[in-house]
Amino acid sequence: MPLKSYVLALSILLMASSVFGQVNGPTQPEATETYEPVPPRVTPGLDGAPPSDAIVLFNGKDFDQWISTSDSTSVNWHLNKDGSMTVKDKTGNIQTKQSFGSIQLHIEWRSPKEVQMSGQNRANSGVFLQGLYEVQVLDNNDNGTYVNGQVGSIYKQSVPLAMASVPSGEWNSYDIIYHAPKFSRGGNIVSPATITVLHNGVLIQDHFEIEGPSEYIGWPQYKSHGKRPLMLQDHRDNSRVSYRNIWVRELD
Amino acid sequence: MPLKSYVLALSILLMASSVFGQVNGPTQPEATETYEPVPPRVTPGLDGAPPSDAIVLFNGKDFDQWISTSDSTSVNWHLNKDGSMTVKDKTGNIQTKQSFGSIQLHIEWRSPKEVQMSGQNRANSGVFLQGLYEVQVLDNNDNGTYVNGQVGSIYKQSVPLAMASVPSGEWNSYDIIYHAPKFSRGGNIVSPATITVLHNGVLIQDHFEIEGPSEYIGWPQYKSHGKRPLMLQDHRDNSRVSYRNIWVRELD
Amino acid sequence: MPLKSYVLALSILLMASSVFGQVNGPTQPEATETYEPVPPRVTPGLDGAPPSDAIVLFNGKDFDQWISTSDSTSVNWHLNKDGSMTVKDKTGNIQTKQSFGSIQLHIEWRSPKEVQMSGQNRANSGVFLQGLYEVQVLDNNDNGTYVNGQVGSIYKQSVPLAMASVPSGEWNSYDIIYHAPKFSRGGNIVSPATITVLHNGVLIQDHFEIEGPSEYIGWPQYKSHGKRPLMLQDHRDNSRVSYRNIWVRELD
Amino acid sequence: MPLKSYVLALSILLMASSVFGQVNGPTQPEATETYEPVPPRVTPGLDGAPPSDAIVLFNGKDFDQWISTSDSTSVNWHLNKDGSMTVKDKTGNIQTKQSFGSIQLHIEWRSPKEVQMSGQNRANSGVFLQGLYEVQVLDNNDNGTYVNGQVGSIYKQSVPLAMASVPSGEWNSYDIIYHAPKFSRGGNIVSPATITVLHNGVLIQDHFEIEGPSEYIGWPQYKSHGKRPLMLQDHRDNSRVSYRNIWVRELD
Repeated sequence: MPLKSYVLALSILLMASSVFGQVNGPTQPEATETYEPVPPRVTPGLDGAPPSDAIVLFNGKDFDQWISTSDSTSVNWHLNKDGSMTVKDKTGNIQTKQSFGSIQLHIEWRSPKEVQMSGQNRANSGVFLQGLYEVQVLDNNDNGTYVNGQVGSIYKQSVPLAMASVPSGEWNSYDIIYHAPKFSRGGNIVSPATITVLHNGVLIQDHFEIEGPSEYIGWPQYKSHGKRPLMLQDHRDNSRVSYRNIWVRELD
Repeated sequence: MPLKSYVLALSILLMASSVFGQVNGPTQPEATETYEPVPPRVTPGLDGAPPSDAIVLFNGKDFDQWISTSDSTSVNWHLNKDGSMTVKDKTGNIQTKQSFGSIQLHIEWRSPKEVQMSGQNRANSGVFLQGLYEVQVLDNNDNGTYVNGQVGSIYKQSVPLAMASVPSGEWNSYDIIYHAPKFSRGGNIVSPATITVLHNGVLIQDHFEIEGPSEYIGWPQYKSHGKRPLMLQDHRDNSRVSYRNIWVRELD
Repeated sequence: MPLKSYVLALSILLMASSVFGQVNGPTQPEATETYEPVPPRVTPGLDGAPPSDAIVLFNGKDFDQWISTSDSTSVNWHLNKDGSMTVKDKTGNIQTKQSFGSIQLHIEWRSPKEVQMSGQNRANSGVFLQGLYEVQVLDNNDNGTYVNGQVGSIYKQSVPLAMASVPSGEWNSYDIIYHAPKFSRGGNIVSPATITVLHNGVLIQDHFEIEGPSEYIGWPQYKSHGKRPLMLQDHRDNSRVSYRNIWVRELD
Repeated sequence: MPLKSYVLALSILLMASSVFGQVNGPTQPEATETYEPVPPRVTPGLDGAPPSDAIVLFNGKDFDQWISTSDSTSVNWHLNKDGSMTVKDKTGNIQTKQSFGSIQLHIEWRSPKEVQMSGQNRANSGVFLQGLYEVQVLDNNDNGTYVNGQVGSIYKQSVPLAMASVPSGEWNSYDIIYHAPKFSRGGNIVSPATITVLHNGVLIQDHFEIEGPSEYIGWPQYKSHGKRPLMLQDHRDNSRVSYRNIWVRELD
């Protein structure tokens, strides 16, 4: 080959060897290239807006994607003019019509600016993955509680790595990567659910292996299930928590 | 107790049982509450800005946190007035003075609006975790290449789940959760590095188990190491890739 | 040091390096020696006879270690003059008074020399670890059946690696290494039971991960349990299977 | 069906349900039966004699299956009239001509009745699986040493669960279930070797995960390899250890 090509090839090899070390297996770079399948093109959203392939679960205009958990009727929560919804006390939990397995989930929530009560009774709600596994929503600003039940906890299972809330009355975001549990044909748990949570961009749950459905009393135990709806909690204590901009992307 | 308390307790119990199912172990809710250690309070940043506990590696004003990889001298890349840096061709890779293990990393990058060349030669750079494990940076807009070497790939190991770039000339973000590999006392790999990447908020690498240092030729093989610097690549082909707003949070 | 010692040390080092390769960590051999705790001294038995630390469950003289499974009364099986026992049809399963977790188990069994019936009805019995997980006992000499139910199978879960029976009427041995399943505090299976079986000295089950309690119908599902008795089966079809020389050593 | 059949079917079902519990999945017993592939028929040996499918590595008559490890020439150890071999001091290790992966191994060994020296110098030899991973052979009768180097240890890695030797001058047996390590295409260890050892019928190594090649000095580290010969050690200190009745069965 011409000198120039030789020098180029040599410099690439040297770069590779200085950065990377010895070569195992194939000795040609082409041997480790793959060309298909080609991943899908997704147009990202800005600042939490849904990407082009997201399933928008709440866009601020209606409750079309939701039903009441207790009786499957239409949702009685407040639909606000600013494109958010607010828990209506004692109307019960709500859940999506659609069922999901593993998902990427974006959801935004806000606790009231005017605080009421304290501990677990200050703006308590929750995001229940598959209706069973709760990421706690709570106003912990100047408000202590048990740490495995504070904001961003996997309720009574995993204390968050940090308390990263914005002030009461401002909007928080949860960006969640959730993998559904896997069960044997006979119903044994063979692979627990895992969850990663960014709270306002701060990592607070780091691929935590969920121990089972969230329990108020006692230890968690898995029961075999397939796809299930996403659920939002009415804690029945006038929490007045609001939600907006909810979207998911289904993962394998 | 007064009737009201009794009704409240009953309704809580009913809510718990209807949502959660049977009780294993303790029969009192207090038995499963924990109160310490209390997680640290972190003030989040807005739209990718660093949280209060982040180590800011590049704030747009200087290269104080960086050195040249090849000779440990000061960095020769371009420092731009808009608070970004740009690769200066053939001046070599740069790396942080500080060494890291497991981290949450935020980094923003931009390929030039005016495109040059094609395939792997169009705006090629890379974010090397611990200087060894590369998340590919490349302008793939209307520009194909091998998919395990496209933008957002773990180079030659993991095809991204999606191609989520913004148009050439606009700013992309990578939000990365990286866990360093663990080695036995004798140097065996016992726990591979793992990586999760959000590209402009879209999940493109989902807790991928890295197979070893990124290799241009051949298969990857781990070699035992401790903490190491973060490295950014000069691909030596006039890539003109720019970076800004780089921060990390150390994980255990 | 004197020349002789020097040569000795050198030759040991050379031997080590030629056999073993490079040195990681400590450079003195003493650094990798440990002196306690000292393992117990056990006097082995000959040809399947119990070692000095074994719990002898059946020595041919009485049923003192056994009860009827159905009603906890004394055992109605046959006690033979040659130091063996034989299933008495339709008197039910029997089990040890003592409960066990993980064990090494030696047990010998014999199917009748005069065969009766065929398939699953020819000398069918079973060794149930913890009363739940069955190693099949069956006369498969010139007698076919479903292979996951043949002699040495983990019943309906694992086909044996070989059919290693002696002729009908002669004594077989099972040497079993069994590890009990482990459960979470809430009752999830976190580590399945494992079993290794040597049938007449031939490996037929190789650290098989048991899927759950043996089921005649349907798929297995674990239910949390602690130590439980060893059980022997009366298959209720005049199996006339005999047992002798049963001992265990507790593991963990 | 006739009444008798009905009663039989019912009683089988009742037995199944009382023993086994609830039914998951199929409701017919036939649905969980499998009929192929049919495992091979193996005629077992008596008291450690080789089964019909074993590869006999030493039958007491010649060294046809063995070579000297250092120079691949014929073996210089002693061939005894009683069908055993004895280490000839300073002639070097010997190994099989054939290479093996995972195996079941039976081997018998004897230390001299007349003891010499002490500690690691009393009848020291070793069985090296794949020529790399040593099960220690040593006369520990009234002879202490570091416990991770005593008889039955995985040398400097795993203390045996018991010291189960017969008196000096009598024959010991090792029955070993060994699984070869697995490596990635790039040479990473992905599944360590495992070993189970029965010493004179007593479990002394219980599915131990081997940490790497046995090292006299320093910590073990795996290097990728395929099938390799079985090796027996000349410890070069007049150990006079004898071996006999060596056979293997290849596992997947």
